[in-house]
Amino acid sequence: MTGPATAAHVISAEVGGTHFTVHIGDGRLEHLGPLWAERAAGDQALVVFDANTASHAEAAAASLRDAGLRTHMAEVPPGERSKSLTELERLCREAARAGIRRADAVVAVGGGVVGDLAGFLAASYQRGVRLVHVPTTLLAMVDSSIGGKTGVDLPEGKNYVGAIWQPQLVVMDTATLGTLPARELSCGFAEVVKYGLLDSIELFERVEAWPAPLPGPGGPLLDLIRDCVRHKVEVVTQDERETGLRASLNLGHTVGHGIEAAAGYERYHHGEAISLGLLAALRIAGHARKLDPSWRDRTRAVLERHGLPTRLDPEVRTPDILAAMGRDKKADATALNMVLLDEPGVVLLRQDPPHDLVVAAIEELRA
Amino acid sequence: MTGPATAAHVISAEVGGTHFTVHIGDGRLEHLGPLWAERAAGDQALVVFDANTASHAEAAAASLRDAGLRTHMAEVPPGERSKSLTELERLCREAARAGIRRADAVVAVGGGVVGDLAGFLAASYQRGVRLVHVPTTLLAMVDSSIGGKTGVDLPEGKNYVGAIWQPQLVVMDTATLGTLPARELSCGFAEVVKYGLLDSIELFERVEAWPAPLPGPGGPLLDLIRDCVRHKVEVVTQDERETGLRASLNLGHTVGHGIEAAAGYERYHHGEAISLGLLAALRIAGHARKLDPSWRDRTRAVLERHGLPTRLDPEVRTPDILAAMGRDKKADATALNMVLLDEPGVVLLRQDPPHDLVVAAIEELRA
Repeated sequence: MTGPATAAHVISAEVGGTHFTVHIGDGRLEHLGPLWAERAAGDQALVVFDANTASHAEAAAASLRDAGLRTHMAEVPPGERSKSLTELERLCREAARAGIRRADAVVAVGGGVVGDLAGFLAASYQRGVRLVHVPTTLLAMVDSSIGGKTGVDLPEGKNYVGAIWQPQLVVMDTATLGTLPARELSCGFAEVVKYGLLDSIELFERVEAWPAPLPGPGGPLLDLIRDCVRHKVEVVTQDERETGLRASLNLGHTVGHGIEAAAGYERYHHGEAISLGLLAALRIAGHARKLDPSWRDRTRAVLERHGLPTRLDPEVRTPDILAAMGRDKKADATALNMVLLDEPGVVLLRQDPPHDLVVAAIEELRA
Repeated sequence: MTGPATAAHVISAEVGGTHFTVHIGDGRLEHLGPLWAERAAGDQALVVFDANTASHAEAAAASLRDAGLRTHMAEVPPGERSKSLTELERLCREAARAGIRRADAVVAVGGGVVGDLAGFLAASYQRGVRLVHVPTTLLAMVDSSIGGKTGVDLPEGKNYVGAIWQPQLVVMDTATLGTLPARELSCGFAEVVKYGLLDSIELFERVEAWPAPLPGPGGPLLDLIRDCVRHKVEVVTQDERETGLRASLNLGHTVGHGIEAAAGYERYHHGEAISLGLLAALRIAGHARKLDPSWRDRTRAVLERHGLPTRLDPEVRTPDILAAMGRDKKADATALNMVLLDEPGVVLLRQDPPHDLVVAAIEELRA
């Protein structure tokens, strides 16, 4: 411990004309009301949550009410199935009946599903209302609550309908991680490993040295989350709509999404598929870019230590993975984009890596 | 006729980071393909249309194909009912199955309904693809195809879900107005009268002098459309998200929307409700701002001459209109915003005009 566990980090930036502030701290949820009252224009908030985050949502609403806002609660069923246009319509109608107006806020309390759905609600209800994210999972803290990607799924693909819509305020309370299942914490850690690889050897080595299982709230965890968030904020500030640099955040996601889709979204959670995708990307980088293989070994070791898969289920077939990669919405036109590394912190985008190399990297995940 | 009927006007501007170009001419539709090929990044287009615009959509698609694009056709049922999240989902799935990608275009061929729905499709499918508007009604040309407002309806209100999404190209072919029913032309003319009032005494007097019925395609009509478009482009360039100036475009719409909603959207078409709303706004301006009553008399005369209603159906009740105005999404927080005039071209916004004045203005529409 280098400081009191309740110290909070604050990161501010402007993306696409929206100024936003991220607060990271242990116990920050109780400050949500005063923090939002500083920014709020309207006097109402619609708090969106699921059964897993009901107690956090109640705490969020209580803090908002104490700060003088009227709150309305909107519960959605937990799980990816809630990311649908049907659920969006239900929420929009709830917002309309509650009398939510353009100056009011949607407050998303939960993980990626709640954040993506409530974020699209905020983007599209009355053509856009204010958005506050209260991510309650590690994955949502370091990844989905930052950068403004929102959306729902179609039978044809995940996140096929959505918007880029920036939150004005993001409040991360590491105390909410205390009740998170170990598997969900691990999934978030896969993205943390990704940031280590993208950011620098220094961050990678801090991630690598991280004790498993993840410790409870405290200064070092706050610092780690802050550094991941800072990396993502820096990238999306420069490239909100993913016309270039932002695509680097997809390291591990091209093959990872392919595995996730080919396995039917049940076998692997997102972070688990990314764990495998990272290893595949590092394998390709080892051949196409002379990344030293030791980085891949070290990455595999840290993923394994955190309970993440490093070997692909033999039942998930390579042709299905390749087919799903071809449909991946992040692939522009017909080219397949891969994020590769020369070393941690030295990132490049490569269009259409040799097909044989991609196949070999997937096959090697079975070894 | 001051020039050849086939002369085209071109207006270019940048709104919210999107550069867009509007082409206005007689027979411009056949130039759609070459015009879009200059801007296109992808090689596909999804052409959205309804039964009323099928032949224009075919002409648009043929022109796009001649320019080397692959086209997919997506027909929607005509009428306001198509502005639903259900129809949006169907279109998104059609786009996904057609393999439409981020660099490709949605091409909206039709009036306001097609444009609003297809525009929201372009805004939200894969978090945003390119958008081309081919408005085929006078209302869509002078109003809904410009400014980026897109959306669908909820049972709770019109346009309650949507996005601001700018087209990159707008092609207006006045030849498409030739097949438009007289009632639809009149509805568009209500917005033309609005632009006259908003812009200047000069434009108002040109609008006032316009022969009824609307003449076929030709130079003067192109000039009139150009001047309305130019006014709207200037306003939305300065205020894309309606935080200020853009609200001026709602002249006649506060009471107009109230009448439209209270009458159940069947009795009055949009432009007809705006006709009544303009007269109510001028009445209020006459009392609150000393607008000379002669402007109202002249406005009533030109609206009447174009077959637009200037007397309110007694069956549409004032309390219902007032209630619908209170729900109007354009009213921010709890204030009722009205656009008022001192004279044509001298516009101001007024929050919460005296209730009695609003009631009196509605009642006077029955006189």
